[in-house]
Amino acid sequence: MTRTTTVDQSKPVFLPKKFIEKARSKSNVQINEIHTFLEGSPEQSKLILEMMNELAGDSYLVEGTEYYEHNKATSREATAKKLARLAGYLEHDIKRARDEFHRDVRGELQAADAPLITNKDLSFFLKRLDLLTIVDPQLVTRMGVNLLLFGNCVRGNGTDEQIRYWLQERGLALGTGLFGCFAMTEMGHGSNVANIQTLATYEPATDTFKITTPDLVATKWWIGGAAHSATHATVYARLIVEGKDYGVKTFVVPLRDPETMELFPTITIGDIGAKMGRDGIDNGWIQFHGTVIPREYLLSRFTKITPGNPPRVETNNTFESVCGYTALLSGRVGMVKESFRVGQRFATIATRYAVGRQQFGERGNETQLIDYPLHQYRVLPQIALVYLLGPVSVNLDKLYFNTVNSLYAAGSDIKKMQSVIDGMKTLFIESAALKATATWLVAGLIDELRQSCGGHGYSSYNGFGKGYNDWVVQCTWEGDNNVLSLTSGKSILKLFTEAAKGRKLKAPISSLSYLAPEYIQKLNTGALNNVTSLSTLSDYHEIWAVSLIKYLAFSVGVMKSTRNPDSISKYLVSVAKFHAFHSMTKSFYEQLTSDNSYIKDEATRDVLWKVYKLFSVYFIDKFSGELLQLKVLTPDQMSSIIQPQLLSLLQEVKVHCIKLTDAFQLPDAFINAPIGYYDGDIYHNYFNEVTKNAPKDVAPGVPPYANLLTSLLGRDSGFERSGAPSEQLFRRLTK
Amino acid sequence: MTRTTTVDQSKPVFLPKKFIEKARSKSNVQINEIHTFLEGSPEQSKLILEMMNELAGDSYLVEGTEYYEHNKATSREATAKKLARLAGYLEHDIKRARDEFHRDVRGELQAADAPLITNKDLSFFLKRLDLLTIVDPQLVTRMGVNLLLFGNCVRGNGTDEQIRYWLQERGLALGTGLFGCFAMTEMGHGSNVANIQTLATYEPATDTFKITTPDLVATKWWIGGAAHSATHATVYARLIVEGKDYGVKTFVVPLRDPETMELFPTITIGDIGAKMGRDGIDNGWIQFHGTVIPREYLLSRFTKITPGNPPRVETNNTFESVCGYTALLSGRVGMVKESFRVGQRFATIATRYAVGRQQFGERGNETQLIDYPLHQYRVLPQIALVYLLGPVSVNLDKLYFNTVNSLYAAGSDIKKMQSVIDGMKTLFIESAALKATATWLVAGLIDELRQSCGGHGYSSYNGFGKGYNDWVVQCTWEGDNNVLSLTSGKSILKLFTEAAKGRKLKAPISSLSYLAPEYIQKLNTGALNNVTSLSTLSDYHEIWAVSLIKYLAFSVGVMKSTRNPDSISKYLVSVAKFHAFHSMTKSFYEQLTSDNSYIKDEATRDVLWKVYKLFSVYFIDKFSGELLQLKVLTPDQMSSIIQPQLLSLLQEVKVHCIKLTDAFQLPDAFINAPIGYYDGDIYHNYFNEVTKNAPKDVAPGVPPYANLLTSLLGRDSGFERSGAPSEQLFRRLTK
Repeated sequence: MTRTTTVDQSKPVFLPKKFIEKARSKSNVQINEIHTFLEGSPEQSKLILEMMNELAGDSYLVEGTEYYEHNKATSREATAKKLARLAGYLEHDIKRARDEFHRDVRGELQAADAPLITNKDLSFFLKRLDLLTIVDPQLVTRMGVNLLLFGNCVRGNGTDEQIRYWLQERGLALGTGLFGCFAMTEMGHGSNVANIQTLATYEPATDTFKITTPDLVATKWWIGGAAHSATHATVYARLIVEGKDYGVKTFVVPLRDPETMELFPTITIGDIGAKMGRDGIDNGWIQFHGTVIPREYLLSRFTKITPGNPPRVETNNTFESVCGYTALLSGRVGMVKESFRVGQRFATIATRYAVGRQQFGERGNETQLIDYPLHQYRVLPQIALVYLLGPVSVNLDKLYFNTVNSLYAAGSDIKKMQSVIDGMKTLFIESAALKATATWLVAGLIDELRQSCGGHGYSSYNGFGKGYNDWVVQCTWEGDNNVLSLTSGKSILKLFTEAAKGRKLKAPISSLSYLAPEYIQKLNTGALNNVTSLSTLSDYHEIWAVSLIKYLAFSVGVMKSTRNPDSISKYLVSVAKFHAFHSMTKSFYEQLTSDNSYIKDEATRDVLWKVYKLFSVYFIDKFSGELLQLKVLTPDQMSSIIQPQLLSLLQEVKVHCIKLTDAFQLPDAFINAPIGYYDGDIYHNYFNEVTKNAPKDVAPGVPPYANLLTSLLGRDSGFERSGAPSEQLFRRLTK
Repeated sequence: MTRTTTVDQSKPVFLPKKFIEKARSKSNVQINEIHTFLEGSPEQSKLILEMMNELAGDSYLVEGTEYYEHNKATSREATAKKLARLAGYLEHDIKRARDEFHRDVRGELQAADAPLITNKDLSFFLKRLDLLTIVDPQLVTRMGVNLLLFGNCVRGNGTDEQIRYWLQERGLALGTGLFGCFAMTEMGHGSNVANIQTLATYEPATDTFKITTPDLVATKWWIGGAAHSATHATVYARLIVEGKDYGVKTFVVPLRDPETMELFPTITIGDIGAKMGRDGIDNGWIQFHGTVIPREYLLSRFTKITPGNPPRVETNNTFESVCGYTALLSGRVGMVKESFRVGQRFATIATRYAVGRQQFGERGNETQLIDYPLHQYRVLPQIALVYLLGPVSVNLDKLYFNTVNSLYAAGSDIKKMQSVIDGMKTLFIESAALKATATWLVAGLIDELRQSCGGHGYSSYNGFGKGYNDWVVQCTWEGDNNVLSLTSGKSILKLFTEAAKGRKLKAPISSLSYLAPEYIQKLNTGALNNVTSLSTLSDYHEIWAVSLIKYLAFSVGVMKSTRNPDSISKYLVSVAKFHAFHSMTKSFYEQLTSDNSYIKDEATRDVLWKVYKLFSVYFIDKFSGELLQLKVLTPDQMSSIIQPQLLSLLQEVKVHCIKLTDAFQLPDAFINAPIGYYDGDIYHNYFNEVTKNAPKDVAPGVPPYANLLTSLLGRDSGFERSGAPSEQLFRRLTK
């Protein structure tokens, strides 16, 4: 980082570097141990750091602050260029996964008898995408739509032959041959997939389907990649055979010729246009005017049509609807990890700024922001949030891959499928509650931390603006957060009413342990009364379990009195949040108490416990309205236990805040925000980036559109300019 | 509004128009009475509606959805063009204010003996700016820095002669001659104005000041208008005379020649560059390298230098520091009104969408979003928020103008000034608490309502994205919300400790009535115990007064035990919020119970009371953690009174929601979001705007940068394309 300044630096007033270096030296936490703890294993930690540094050095993929100068058109094209670069990594990463640098992975994957591509094959590349989310989320989406939405839709709903054909033979999984998009959402139906209107009518005479958009609101809408880059779409459409509606199934529909990118006849496509964020994604809308596709393009794992007179239709709606979601599930699980990653970036920026920035207090020696308890309250719990997202996202990843691997392994085997279904339901609850809660919390994190950086947080070059705009769509897509919270809350309520009757969970996981009948029993007998004193470490996650049970019991009571299930929606949204807090605190607790915590240093362990406590206490305070109303806590406990703990934990964590964010080990290229670079030279770094993007003016420089301004100011004004003091005097003096 | 569609409309599935028309016809509230109530008088209501419709028809000022396609450069230039248009309105509006269409207002204002320009002269134009905030806030800011920041800085700190010279003779107040910017903030000092570093050193030999930027962090930063349009700046700098530092004073410094826009020597200016929002404002940074200005350019109302050996300095730091803020106060007061205006826009959009949009439920007859209690909970309290911002902003306006008019009238008269100071302190509390709370709440409103519109809320064309990005800087500038909340909370705490000792307020206003010693007495004797039952209408504002007293008493207790004033910062921020809730509910209550409520229709009055209750109950629930901890309410009251009331008020307000937002009477041009237009034809309007901005493609259309994509997909792929089913088959079938 070169640094220049146009003004005298002999007596600088502010020395942010000094403060940050001092804070760094004063904390003895072991950042490598922490990194391993957060990533779940030494192997993962090593891989993440290697890959991150490799990417940070790739100037094709990672831009500097000029990234923030893109407009919609340049952003779309720049992202497409990066996509080509990324396709190279895809092939490289699959090779590496198969056996470090296997020579002919294409030949092997594309052979007629090739085994199906697995999640293990993709594991390195998925990690790469995960990391690139920090740097350029629109790029990740653009590849993700192809590989994970189109790709997983085919994997979840297609036969082995179809998977092999589309992903391997045709090349999609290698980022070549064709480019997929995922045409589920319509203008009029987003969350409500079952009522999608697009029609796929089977035509026995030609053994084909005719795809039709019957109505304006049935226009496929928001389809990522459709405007420019997709050659094929997985289309969600109603299967109509001999006039009968078999519900929503999935079809592959070619849109453009991959050799020329020319649009095929009978298809109308438009650009969705400008968006709040992620303009690098070419979202589009699609209308089908009787587009014909062969029968083989119906994804046929659960739905088969046998030609004949009449044609025979076999379908399994239960499996179809559960598996129809797998493509979305990968997105939801991914977003929890992305919350962890993106949160790291902004927590690092704001923490460095908070330590380096001075405000008020003694002139010449102003107080560091971080020394104000109010500022600690704004910044430090956000670091804790990021930490608590670590172990839970590792666990969710494992749950996801275990479940979908069984799903893929089950093939079309109905018997094996049945046992997968229960696991899928658990995964649904866990991923929905965590996706909604984590993406909301990180939206709040970005917003709060931007404000904590004052005016400088509003500069595009410090990343918060684009970061926020790109982020918040996560609260809406692949399951609207309110809808997801509500449905997962409903599922939890259902399990609760069963558990209260003594029924055990079919697919128990640690984060649902509070729904075990014996746990509810324990609470009822008062065995958990001590939890709210927060006297042991486990109390900090247990309190969420206790709150959940009380909340669920309360909700059941309200529903009984109102006789309207909708009357408890607001409570169920909170239940989903509490469930997420429980999963987060419990995962962290279990990881830190396990033999594989990878934390050997006691001082570091001690700080991690403080972070864990801070998270829990902060959210107890935030949700104290609910906790007090449910009588989990008393008002006196709030003022005598929670509030003082919060205040003292902030003080204790403050000492380590620079090291705690250093532990994420994000290279400056990933930070891409000059007020948050590692060296802490906030003002010089910031000034450099601003002047790099807009060179300075000196006399007699003239701004753009100056004529517009001179004519505004010089318009018939009828006043005398000759009075003193005036410009004339000024000119004399400065000659 | 013309409408086209490319698909069959004979059997549309969704009929949003029908639902919105039905909702409109089912409510009998009188929207004109409401408009008068919210604006404070029939004259204001009439003026607002006339001016709004006049502006809506001005295609120079008001763009359609193409507004959302601007990039930084085009946005800057387009805003400058609008600025010229706006200058015409400025002159027109001053004429109108002086006496409908006074013939020669320039001659009159610019005469040597002209009376000083008054706030009454500007009253029509200020209303116009207020309305334009809904449409194009960056334009308003760009004019605002000139007229209200530069202008009011001169009016607050300058002598009559200086005010007459800069605003009248030179033409600034007429939008001609020169263009001002407000150079207060530096890179290193925003909120902490007292420690600003820029130096203004008096040079006796030439009777001039030398303005110097001593350090990189002393660079004037974020200065709106500095990058391109400003010819002059009011510069906040330390006055140094004979080596002595007299603290921060204000100076007018010429930057560019208004006839050519050429930058003057010794000044370096740069563009701040890209921002999260408001790219139409040309924010810049400025460094002074010994810029010389005449002594007369020191704004000398409270600080005078008499040349001589040694030169004599007279200054009044108390008045200077209080009045130095008047320029900012107008901004803060303005932001409360802007919260009311901008809130109207988004509340209207989201309410129409909530009524017109259907989701889930019976196929072919899906449920309207607004029929879900959860959706009601998300949308309707936001309408209530906007309503509650009405009367309070009218009151705050009055308080502001009364106070600053006395200030301007006081001139340099020290005796008169003293009595103004107390009023200024009250105004500070009221404007700071309301500015911070209102701008935060409206940031939350935009965010929540965007999410309530699902994916369509993320489209730029529906306004939320740019609306949010433009809005949130309001939480930071002209007083950071946390700093403002904290300082107003501290002032309230100080008044409380005095009131507890029996001392009366010096400048009592209705919203501070809870700080009267007799009120605190009343609470202590239990005379206010019934308030929390919410059995009378006044209880809904009184509960906030009771909560405030309890919160303040609690804070005093904590401070006593920690002996650290910073330990209660978090509570004081909440105190400022509670104060704002109290002001909002009390203003509304007083307006609706007064003889001048302008509500004659009983049914309408009844609905307004429901809106008022909903606001209060919603925030009681939101802040129930605090209210329960402070024992204002018991847990049982929360579940037996507050929660059921919230649920039933939502149901009751729902019936009127379309009319309640119709009552704002915003023209579609002000809405500028097709999912929120008056006719409710959501999908056609939306589709029209999308296709207007990005024409559709049909076969064999090719997307931009297609070669980039074909080379990506066609790169050496080594797989066989001839297998069926394939593109070849597809082509045969579609021939």
